[in-house]
Amino acid sequence: MEDVLAYLEGRKDASLADLLAFASIPSVSTDPERRGDVRRAAEWLAGRLRTAGLSTVDILETPGHPVVYAEWLGAPDAPTVLVYGHYDVQPPDPLDRWQSPPFTPTVRGERVHGRGVSDDKGPLLIPVQVAEAFFQTRGTLPLNVKFLFEGEEEVGSPNLAPFVRAQAGRLRADVVLSADGGMWRADVPTLTVSSRGLAGLELTLRGPGKDLHSGRHGGAVQNPLHALASLLAGLHDERGRVTVDGFYDDVQELSDDERASLRALPFDEEAYRAEVGAPALFGEAGSSALERLWTHPTLEVNGMWGGYTGEGSKTVLPSEAHAKITCRLVANQDPERVTEAVVRHLETHLPPGVTLDVRPSDHGARAYRIPADHPALLAARKVLTQVYGQPPLEVGMGGSIPICEVFQRELGLETVFFSFAVGDEDIHAPNEFFRIPRLYEGQRAWARLWQELAVREVAPV
Amino acid sequence: MEDVLAYLEGRKDASLADLLAFASIPSVSTDPERRGDVRRAAEWLAGRLRTAGLSTVDILETPGHPVVYAEWLGAPDAPTVLVYGHYDVQPPDPLDRWQSPPFTPTVRGERVHGRGVSDDKGPLLIPVQVAEAFFQTRGTLPLNVKFLFEGEEEVGSPNLAPFVRAQAGRLRADVVLSADGGMWRADVPTLTVSSRGLAGLELTLRGPGKDLHSGRHGGAVQNPLHALASLLAGLHDERGRVTVDGFYDDVQELSDDERASLRALPFDEEAYRAEVGAPALFGEAGSSALERLWTHPTLEVNGMWGGYTGEGSKTVLPSEAHAKITCRLVANQDPERVTEAVVRHLETHLPPGVTLDVRPSDHGARAYRIPADHPALLAARKVLTQVYGQPPLEVGMGGSIPICEVFQRELGLETVFFSFAVGDEDIHAPNEFFRIPRLYEGQRAWARLWQELAVREVAPV
Repeated sequence: MEDVLAYLEGRKDASLADLLAFASIPSVSTDPERRGDVRRAAEWLAGRLRTAGLSTVDILETPGHPVVYAEWLGAPDAPTVLVYGHYDVQPPDPLDRWQSPPFTPTVRGERVHGRGVSDDKGPLLIPVQVAEAFFQTRGTLPLNVKFLFEGEEEVGSPNLAPFVRAQAGRLRADVVLSADGGMWRADVPTLTVSSRGLAGLELTLRGPGKDLHSGRHGGAVQNPLHALASLLAGLHDERGRVTVDGFYDDVQELSDDERASLRALPFDEEAYRAEVGAPALFGEAGSSALERLWTHPTLEVNGMWGGYTGEGSKTVLPSEAHAKITCRLVANQDPERVTEAVVRHLETHLPPGVTLDVRPSDHGARAYRIPADHPALLAARKVLTQVYGQPPLEVGMGGSIPICEVFQRELGLETVFFSFAVGDEDIHAPNEFFRIPRLYEGQRAWARLWQELAVREVAPV
Repeated sequence: MEDVLAYLEGRKDASLADLLAFASIPSVSTDPERRGDVRRAAEWLAGRLRTAGLSTVDILETPGHPVVYAEWLGAPDAPTVLVYGHYDVQPPDPLDRWQSPPFTPTVRGERVHGRGVSDDKGPLLIPVQVAEAFFQTRGTLPLNVKFLFEGEEEVGSPNLAPFVRAQAGRLRADVVLSADGGMWRADVPTLTVSSRGLAGLELTLRGPGKDLHSGRHGGAVQNPLHALASLLAGLHDERGRVTVDGFYDDVQELSDDERASLRALPFDEEAYRAEVGAPALFGEAGSSALERLWTHPTLEVNGMWGGYTGEGSKTVLPSEAHAKITCRLVANQDPERVTEAVVRHLETHLPPGVTLDVRPSDHGARAYRIPADHPALLAARKVLTQVYGQPPLEVGMGGSIPICEVFQRELGLETVFFSFAVGDEDIHAPNEFFRIPRLYEGQRAWARLWQELAVREVAPV
C-alpha cells in the first residue's frame, strides 16, 4: 500500500489542478444552452481516464447527456466494483451571490470554491486518480473496476435506468461504490447507509385570460397569486406536517431501537441552526431535527412565481401563477403513489376562479438502505477507521440518490456511498466549496478500500 | 365650432402619425435604464406643444422625471383649465406575449397597438391637437389653458405633490381636466366620477442564511416559500374578503340609493367574465362585481417570487421569499392607516422560522369623488351627449388617479376625467391598444368642452 500512497502524496498539486480544470467547465445539465459544455466535460473526463491508464474508455450516448464509461478487468480472481459518479452540476444562480465566479474555481485557504467542486466533480476524480496511482506504481489494479459517470444526475437521471438495463451485461459487478453522496459532517468520518426518495411536480394556476390592471379589475376576479398562496399554504399544517391525504400511508414509525440510535448520534441542533443561518429550526412537533431529516418524508416548494417581480412596482393582476414542488420519500413510499396523492389534493383543494395544470416529473426514486452486514460496507468502515483513526458513524441522508434503486433493480447490486464531500459544502447554493484535504484523504481511503475489497467475498444481492 | 371641427377632420392622418411617433419612445418610468428615453419623450412632447402654437413651453425638473408644462393665458375674461396627463408608460413585459413590438406602434384595423397608446399618450395628445386646431383656425383659444404633463404617473407620482405645491401660483386655475382616466366601456359614453385610492408595500421573508439543498435540509427548517404562501393566504378569507384587522374600519356601507343606481347601470357580469377570460368571477358574497370594483377596497398581490423559477428543476430550499402588494381604497380610507394595518397583520401572523422585512411604498393616495353638481362635470356631460347622441353614464373607477387628491389639496381644484381611452384596452398588459376613432371623437369633445366652459361660471372649490 505504501507505494501507492507515496505516489499520491507526491502528486497533490496535480490532483488539485485536475479539479480546477474539470470544475471550470460549466456542465449545467438542466440548462439547454449548456448542452455543449456538458459534452465538453464528458470529453475532458474521458481524456482524464485515458491518461490515468484505463485502456477501455467510451463516451456512450443516451437520449440526453452521454455516459462516460471506462473499465479495467485484469484481475480475474478478484471482485468487480462499479464506480458511480456524475460530471454534471447544478445551475449557478443566483449569480450575484457568488464571491468568485462559479466556473472559475478559486482556492481560498483549505477550500476550493466553484459550482460542482463538491457535487460531484471533486469526489468523482478521487477514484480516477487512485487508479492512476496503482497503474503508475504497480501497472495493475488490485481488483476489476468499471467506471460509470453520468451527466444527468442533477436532472434526476432520466436516462440512466434504460441505459443500465440495456448495458446490464457490460456493467455486471459485485457492488457499486458511489463517489456521489457526501459525508454527514466535517469533524467525524461517516458512512451513509440510507437516503430519501424523490417525487416532484410543477403546477400552474390560470385565472384571467391575460394580465389585468389590478386597480381596474381587482375585487371582481380571483387573483391566481392569491389562489396559489392558498393552495400551497394548505399543503402543510402549522407545525409543518404535510396535510395531503394518504401522504404518510406507507410510512413506518421508527422502532424504539432506531430512535435510540438516532438519539445517540452527536448532533447539536443549535449548532446546526447556526450553520444554516435560520432564525429557528422548524418542523413536526415531538421529533428531533435529525429524525425529521432522515426518516420523515417532506413536501417542499422549490420555486414559486407570478406577476411582476422586477424593480419598482407594477399594479398587475396576473393571468398565471406557478410553483415547483418536490417530495422526499422514506422507506416503502412509492413516488408515483405520492405524486398522485399530491395531485389529488391540489385538485380537490383548488380555490374558485382558477384552473389547475399539473405536470408531474417523469423521474422519481424510492428511498434506499444498504443491509447493515454487507461486506463492502464492513470494508468501507474498516478503511475509514484506518484513515481517520476513529470508526465512522453510520448516518442517514436527507437527499436522494435515485441511482441506488436503479442499480438494485437492474443489476441486483447494493451501493456503498464513498464520497469525500461534506454535507455543509453549499452544494446547490452559491459559493459551493470542497475541502481540499478531503481530496487527499479520499485518495488514501479509496486506495485502501480497493485493496481491502480485493480479498473479501463480495457477492451481489 | 364648425371651423375648428373641420380643421381636425382634415388632419386625421397627421393626428394618428403624432401618436405613432410619440408611442415609439419607450418612456418606461419604473426602469432606471429608460431614464434617457423618458426625457426624450418629454422633449418630443414639449416640441409638439410648440408646433401646436403654445408660446410658453417648459421642461421643468423634479428630483425624478421632468414635468412638461405649457400655457396660453390670452382670454382674461374666460376661466382657466389645467389639463393633466402623463407621458410615461408601464413596463412592457412579458415581452413574448406581444403580437407586435411594444414600442413599434402598429395599426391593425381600427386599433393602434403599443405600450402607452391608451395609457396615456393617445388621450394626452388630444387636447394638444385641439389647441392647435383653435390656433390655426382662430389664432386664439376660447379659454385659458395650462398643460401639466408628468413623467412619473406609473411610479405613483412621487414628485408631483411637491412640484404642484411649489408651483401653486403658476398653476392657479378653475378646474382640472384630466386626459388620463379612461372610459368605462366602448359602447356607451361615460363620465368617471370616482376613483379608488392606493397603498402598497413590498415584503421579504428570510429563513436560512443561504439557499439550502431541499433534500439535505428539508424538514428541519422553515421553507420561506411555505411561510410566504401561508402569510399571503391568510390575508383573505375563502370568499375573497380581506382579513386584516381594521382594514374595513373607515369604509362606509353603500346607501340604498347608491346601490340602486349601481344596479341600474347596464352591466352583464357574464360578458365581463368572458372579456377578462376568467373561468369564473370571484369576490365577496352578496355584492355585485360592479359594487366590488368601484366601492370595495381590495388587497392584491401583484408579484410573488422565490426559489428556482427557471427551466427544469432545482431542489433548493431558498433563503428568501418576496411579494409585492397593493391595496385599492375607497372613500374615507387613509393610505397610511391601511398600510399600517397590513404591516401589523403581517407581523402578528408571521409563521415561525422566518423574519419579516416590510418596505411600504412612499406614495399612497386617497379615493376621490367629484361633487355631482360641479359645473365642469355638467359641461362635460353636455358635450358628450352632443358628440355621442346619448347622455353619458356616470361611473366609478376601480383604479386610482392619485393626482385628484394632489390637485384638491394643493390647489383647491376638482378634477373632471375626460379621457377617450377605454378600460378594456389592455393597459398594463401585453398588446395594449387604443381605438383610433376615439382619437377623433375625443378631439371633437375637447373642442366643444373648452367652448362650453368658456361661457360657464367655473369656480374652484
